[in-house]
Amino acid sequence: MARDNSRRRSRSRRESEAFRQLPWRLVTNPYKPIEVLDEAQIEAIHETSLRILEEIGMDFLHPEALGILKQMGAEVEVGSERVRFDRNLVLDCVAKAPARFTLHARNPAHNLEIGGNNTVFAQVASAPNVSDRDRGRRVGNFEDFANLLRLAQQLNIIHLTGGYPVEPVDLAPATRHLDCIAALATLTDKVYHAYSLGRTRILDALEMTRMARGIDAAQLSREPSLFSIVNTSSPLRLDGPMIEGILEMSARNQVIVVTPFTLSGAMSPATLAGALAQQNAEALAGIAFTQMVRPGAPVIYGGFTSNVDMKSGAPAFGTPEYTKAALAGGQLARRYMLPYRSSNANAANAVDAQAAYESEMSLWGAAMGHANLVMHGAGWMEGGLTASFEKTVLDAELLQMMAEFLTPIEVTEETLGLEAVREVGPGGHFFGAAHTLARYETAFYAPILSDWRNFETWREAGSPDATERANALYKRLLADYSPPPLAPAVAEELAAFVARRKEEGGAEAA
Amino acid sequence: MARDNSRRRSRSRRESEAFRQLPWRLVTNPYKPIEVLDEAQIEAIHETSLRILEEIGMDFLHPEALGILKQMGAEVEVGSERVRFDRNLVLDCVAKAPARFTLHARNPAHNLEIGGNNTVFAQVASAPNVSDRDRGRRVGNFEDFANLLRLAQQLNIIHLTGGYPVEPVDLAPATRHLDCIAALATLTDKVYHAYSLGRTRILDALEMTRMARGIDAAQLSREPSLFSIVNTSSPLRLDGPMIEGILEMSARNQVIVVTPFTLSGAMSPATLAGALAQQNAEALAGIAFTQMVRPGAPVIYGGFTSNVDMKSGAPAFGTPEYTKAALAGGQLARRYMLPYRSSNANAANAVDAQAAYESEMSLWGAAMGHANLVMHGAGWMEGGLTASFEKTVLDAELLQMMAEFLTPIEVTEETLGLEAVREVGPGGHFFGAAHTLARYETAFYAPILSDWRNFETWREAGSPDATERANALYKRLLADYSPPPLAPAVAEELAAFVARRKEEGGAEAA
Repeated sequence: MARDNSRRRSRSRRESEAFRQLPWRLVTNPYKPIEVLDEAQIEAIHETSLRILEEIGMDFLHPEALGILKQMGAEVEVGSERVRFDRNLVLDCVAKAPARFTLHARNPAHNLEIGGNNTVFAQVASAPNVSDRDRGRRVGNFEDFANLLRLAQQLNIIHLTGGYPVEPVDLAPATRHLDCIAALATLTDKVYHAYSLGRTRILDALEMTRMARGIDAAQLSREPSLFSIVNTSSPLRLDGPMIEGILEMSARNQVIVVTPFTLSGAMSPATLAGALAQQNAEALAGIAFTQMVRPGAPVIYGGFTSNVDMKSGAPAFGTPEYTKAALAGGQLARRYMLPYRSSNANAANAVDAQAAYESEMSLWGAAMGHANLVMHGAGWMEGGLTASFEKTVLDAELLQMMAEFLTPIEVTEETLGLEAVREVGPGGHFFGAAHTLARYETAFYAPILSDWRNFETWREAGSPDATERANALYKRLLADYSPPPLAPAVAEELAAFVARRKEEGGAEAA
Repeated sequence: MARDNSRRRSRSRRESEAFRQLPWRLVTNPYKPIEVLDEAQIEAIHETSLRILEEIGMDFLHPEALGILKQMGAEVEVGSERVRFDRNLVLDCVAKAPARFTLHARNPAHNLEIGGNNTVFAQVASAPNVSDRDRGRRVGNFEDFANLLRLAQQLNIIHLTGGYPVEPVDLAPATRHLDCIAALATLTDKVYHAYSLGRTRILDALEMTRMARGIDAAQLSREPSLFSIVNTSSPLRLDGPMIEGILEMSARNQVIVVTPFTLSGAMSPATLAGALAQQNAEALAGIAFTQMVRPGAPVIYGGFTSNVDMKSGAPAFGTPEYTKAALAGGQLARRYMLPYRSSNANAANAVDAQAAYESEMSLWGAAMGHANLVMHGAGWMEGGLTASFEKTVLDAELLQMMAEFLTPIEVTEETLGLEAVREVGPGGHFFGAAHTLARYETAFYAPILSDWRNFETWREAGSPDATERANALYKRLLADYSPPPLAPAVAEELAAFVARRKEEGGAEAA
């Protein structure tokens, strides 16, 4: 105990010395979205997507889903998983989804308002590899997984985690979800995600989330507290484990994010209009299905249209096409009055200039597309193959800058500063002006990563580039980490649940 | 001669092998600008700026200018350089400036349309230092100056040069402008800039530009062919050499870009509203003065409001404040129906992730602020202290990506691709679809710098980061360079002019 206290004191001292970041706050976009399509173009994409669902149809690889779809009036092809939808059925179901909702964290201060002009940033998710400068790129493991969660807790601009930041393959597959959800629920007090990898895993996650929040099942059903990404297997297929995620999550009023992964030229047509039409068809079908399971269940329209490199077939992200698709996706989601999900994506192999500019292209698409949920907000590399510690810090800077950009200019008599200009006058300077001194601490955004020292000072300090500085910062954030408070009874209940479920053998193979 | 031909053949072979870039084209923005201020806020800034000019005034450090200003109705304080402007005088003059005009290059294919929704990208200008990875950072010199011009000629996305990319301090100050303008006029065939560093230098540049275009003085006066940046010495002062630039350039219908350098917290109030009000006052006063010299003379409203780091006083660029100011500046310029100039700025010491993300923040402000002229578009580092060869290539990629982003999505029955989706169907893939194959070459943007190889292939290639790749690319572009055609008579006339003017001693100290 004495040791703990001394550690806490030394940590507080370090914090007060230097690490400054923006306080936790929800981000609201005060500007109009960028519209890359006019109304007629949006309607043409809408119309094409409805014809895709009417004439071509989509495969739902789950008997229970086929039963529900048939019962609700969809046309299920006999002896097949092919489902065709009348446009009115799709649109009537989609219209039942809420335009906004609250996503509850175990720490109520970290609750999230999803929808409207709000934007929340999630950590990288689902990377098979992890990397930092010291140890290079390695296969995902639980130690790195936990450290990435600690960074998500430490960085205020990361509003929620988005899944497993890296896949901890050193944990047994059947019980991995138990350890991971326990870590998500205890190492952070922010909203987290559970994978739609079949019924058992989702039900375990729901139960652990109920425990972590210390509420009963009825309250959980009133208060969305868990979210799950449902990717279609483009083109036009929804797999069984994903469908089970919808069945269990939507039934309990939890949040589904339907995200077609429509890589233009590979899983969708090699034209943005075609890729968007197919994205829209798949998203609308998935969203309609959530509303068949439970009308009013919270659901988010996900867009992840990018393009492949036509020469190699490699997926590309943060391309001009990606940015346009992200903005168009926002227009489509708003057409149906649905919350919108986009991503902070890039295809770089190194945390270098390319990683930064591709991420910026993605982020501008997300922000000005009025994305309500930005997945992979911090740490994503290589088209999703690696979670990077340095990229996490780099992205935190990008996200903070975007949040500050989205803070409107204050125009008042005081800020217009006519009297300050009069005081200083032609040829003077404002360093010592009262108007300046009064704003010394708060006038401008203070970066966490950007280095504005002059060249000579920077060279004397060893010429550290942004990635090297990010390396030092992530280690410092980890050293400063302490877990968020958790009632001992809750911790015990969670541990007991994990122990019992492990004894039972965990989940079936997904 | 034989050797030249063989060199040309080998160059062509290399070009056909790999270096692919977008063709030369003017960039038009089809999207609505981002508006960070509402109409009432714009009017409040407008009103404050007019009060600054009415009540506080601005210093014009040139007797001839004071005479013109007095004659045109401005109030010149007796025994002083302080000038106060009635708002109607300012607005009447500003209203005479054209909303758009053509800026003529010696190669007519490189003429530029300035105004409306057009955007042109200029090379870095005025850096005292130059750097690349091989030789590090060094003081500007003519060899690097010329090589940077060669890159400006080689890269199609660089529409014009913006001044001396780096200051060649190895050339004698009195005759430096002669060698530099000769280089600008011969190593490239794109539009270039002359410094407003007193009367003689501008007159020399005008004469050389007339020669390079092979036209007479009357045609030069009908066809703007040279531009000059006029920076105010903020707060509220216009220096003599800059004023002489306006006097000579505007009188001959050449292009002036009035750019207050209103660093918030140093040369303007520590609030964006105040900095913008002061920027607007200085810009309007300078623009009004160009119209007093010659009504209808082409002039561009320049915005360069950024902020200092309040801790150190260091200037910062590509900050959230910078982006907001760039967008607000566009709104102000459009209020007066003037073309708008912004920049691609950053404060990084290395061509790293920071250089990329700060540049992106600047570029998005420029593009979505509908800047018509983006200065420092390629190569700017360290808040303008260094021109970088690698950053030139990096920025060419950023500019190309922005140009492609600004190319609207084509929505037609063909691009909507319903039949392609029908052909492929659920669970298939589009790689081999006829719809895809027909677009194999042109479907998506092909980058010049981005590396989309998978991690293993990239690692086997030596793990080159973006800056290392940029280093190889700039050398290749230089190796591939050949000067644009120039009539021998013109070349001789220019050389003779430079020789004569050197004999005469060149220009006075600026």
